[in-house]
Amino acid sequence: MPELRHDPVQKRWVIIATERSRRPVDLRTPDEPRAAGFCPFCPGNEAATPPEIAAVRPPGSLPGGPGWRVRVVPNKFPALRIEGGPERQAVGTYDRMNGIGAHEVVIETPDHGTDLADTDYGAVERVIRTYIDRQRDLLRDRRFKYVLVFKNHGEVAGATLSHPHSQIIATPVTPRTISTELTSARDHYHLKERCLFCDMLDQELQTGTRVVWSDPMFAVVAPYASRFPFELTILPRRHCHSFIEMGQEEVSGLGRVLRDTLRRLKICLGNPPFNYMIHTAPNLDYEPRRTTFWQTVPFDFHWHIEVIPRLTQVAGFEWGTGFYINPTAPEEAATFLREIDLE
Amino acid sequence: MPELRHDPVQKRWVIIATERSRRPVDLRTPDEPRAAGFCPFCPGNEAATPPEIAAVRPPGSLPGGPGWRVRVVPNKFPALRIEGGPERQAVGTYDRMNGIGAHEVVIETPDHGTDLADTDYGAVERVIRTYIDRQRDLLRDRRFKYVLVFKNHGEVAGATLSHPHSQIIATPVTPRTISTELTSARDHYHLKERCLFCDMLDQELQTGTRVVWSDPMFAVVAPYASRFPFELTILPRRHCHSFIEMGQEEVSGLGRVLRDTLRRLKICLGNPPFNYMIHTAPNLDYEPRRTTFWQTVPFDFHWHIEVIPRLTQVAGFEWGTGFYINPTAPEEAATFLREIDLE
Repeated sequence: MPELRHDPVQKRWVIIATERSRRPVDLRTPDEPRAAGFCPFCPGNEAATPPEIAAVRPPGSLPGGPGWRVRVVPNKFPALRIEGGPERQAVGTYDRMNGIGAHEVVIETPDHGTDLADTDYGAVERVIRTYIDRQRDLLRDRRFKYVLVFKNHGEVAGATLSHPHSQIIATPVTPRTISTELTSARDHYHLKERCLFCDMLDQELQTGTRVVWSDPMFAVVAPYASRFPFELTILPRRHCHSFIEMGQEEVSGLGRVLRDTLRRLKICLGNPPFNYMIHTAPNLDYEPRRTTFWQTVPFDFHWHIEVIPRLTQVAGFEWGTGFYINPTAPEEAATFLREIDLE
Repeated sequence: MPELRHDPVQKRWVIIATERSRRPVDLRTPDEPRAAGFCPFCPGNEAATPPEIAAVRPPGSLPGGPGWRVRVVPNKFPALRIEGGPERQAVGTYDRMNGIGAHEVVIETPDHGTDLADTDYGAVERVIRTYIDRQRDLLRDRRFKYVLVFKNHGEVAGATLSHPHSQIIATPVTPRTISTELTSARDHYHLKERCLFCDMLDQELQTGTRVVWSDPMFAVVAPYASRFPFELTILPRRHCHSFIEMGQEEVSGLGRVLRDTLRRLKICLGNPPFNYMIHTAPNLDYEPRRTTFWQTVPFDFHWHIEVIPRLTQVAGFEWGTGFYINPTAPEEAATFLREIDLE
């Protein structure tokens, strides 16, 4: 069973995934040397993954077989395990709990060589719908405080398989990055009775210099304090705390915007490694309900997607300080990206 | 002039180093293609660096020429600039200030091919003495809130030149990672009137399973909630908030411990890329003095060195959550490292 350990200095949880344990000699070589030519995510190889959790399939196609268009399976090397209770314990001055949670893989397309940037809008929409379905299902489990959907594209960004896929991890604690966002949003709301993200979005749309794209439903912005060159945030223009509360039209709209955003980055930067992470509200049904602490989340939090190309190394200064040095001003990145011809 | 911009959501400062600006096409290739064979840090090439700030030199050897044993020069591509005032400003809902600070390079040895792990204790001691001298000097500048000493070893860890060197950056704000540590330490002290780090150190020395090395002056520990495989913390056993307050004997003692620690990692993991960062107290003479907020720092904070081998990729989950997944339990790492034969 993986273990969650708390760092009392940095106020941060760490997953010690002992079942993935590796000896020093194994750490010297890359993660999993890929058997050339064999991909467990390709149609026909369904038996190479753990049993299917969900899939988008045309009528008549059977679970576990080919014919699917999107497929969700448990991660074969999960960072967290679904069984058991948290069993929180003190270890002297430290704190631990069991590494319970869920770790799923969303195989975005049967086509090994076509990533989201090159596919049609409908395919991206199907992936987003799958994210929503899986999140909704995982949030029913009241042991889980948070469900993160994210994508690693390219080896440098942490992808160990090249077949287009994203991941979903449900955690029994609110991750620190999310807590910080929730707290900032709540403090701003308590002071001003306005959403911090709505305020930022208004300013961005008025200023315009950092806007890559905007339509009546979504805006794509190079954030004012971008940590990385060509970092982007995709924000819904309608205030809403939760990704899974999107309407049908918004899902289609996001499909278009996400596909075009990834395509802009791909053309502009030559298929860079990247990560994206969907920042949405925590599980508000978590027991014991944190009624006082997060009760204003529907008013103060605003879901969004962070997209970070991984072009620069994170070095000692960043690790030591939490500071970032970004050699490309977001205004400049936005200019380059706006001018990209998508065809 | 580089600019510091504040992210109101993550409460984090970012340095937009516009003078280092690169077009998208430049981001596709590595930082600086090295002219084969030429190293600006080797003796004889002193003119290839900006003018020397300080050096350890035998009598008779002249500044700017060869003969030095340790040499400090300004970074040729500084992330922050020494001239000017902070000029803090609001930009709508955001905050900015000038990127003032200092960015220096410590060339650890004239010998291009000998890193700290392979050198003698005296050489490491000289490097530590140089860190202390430069920190002391930079802390006299009351515009600087913090001075970070860190080392990037290997390309993956962010080193762009292979000649052994470390870096020093002075910043006009307290970095977020340091604030978090200071706040945790202060809260613990206010509650218990004991140092958080002393408490942790006591527990580690009693438990023993995560201790790699201990002597009367220093302990080397694999932290309970290690983020990375083989992450280590070097702690002085005497409570002290500031790295620059070490006595002569402690400096020698740290020279031995740091060299041996790096040597253990090198032998155990086969010369891994790594970073180390010296976490010390902020500038307590900063104006306006933060007398109430940090006034207990000498009692509650305890300087230490973080050493992180860079063997695993940081991916979307880590960026999205601040969580880390570590496949090697610190108890296991400590066992491997304790058993290393240093000769």
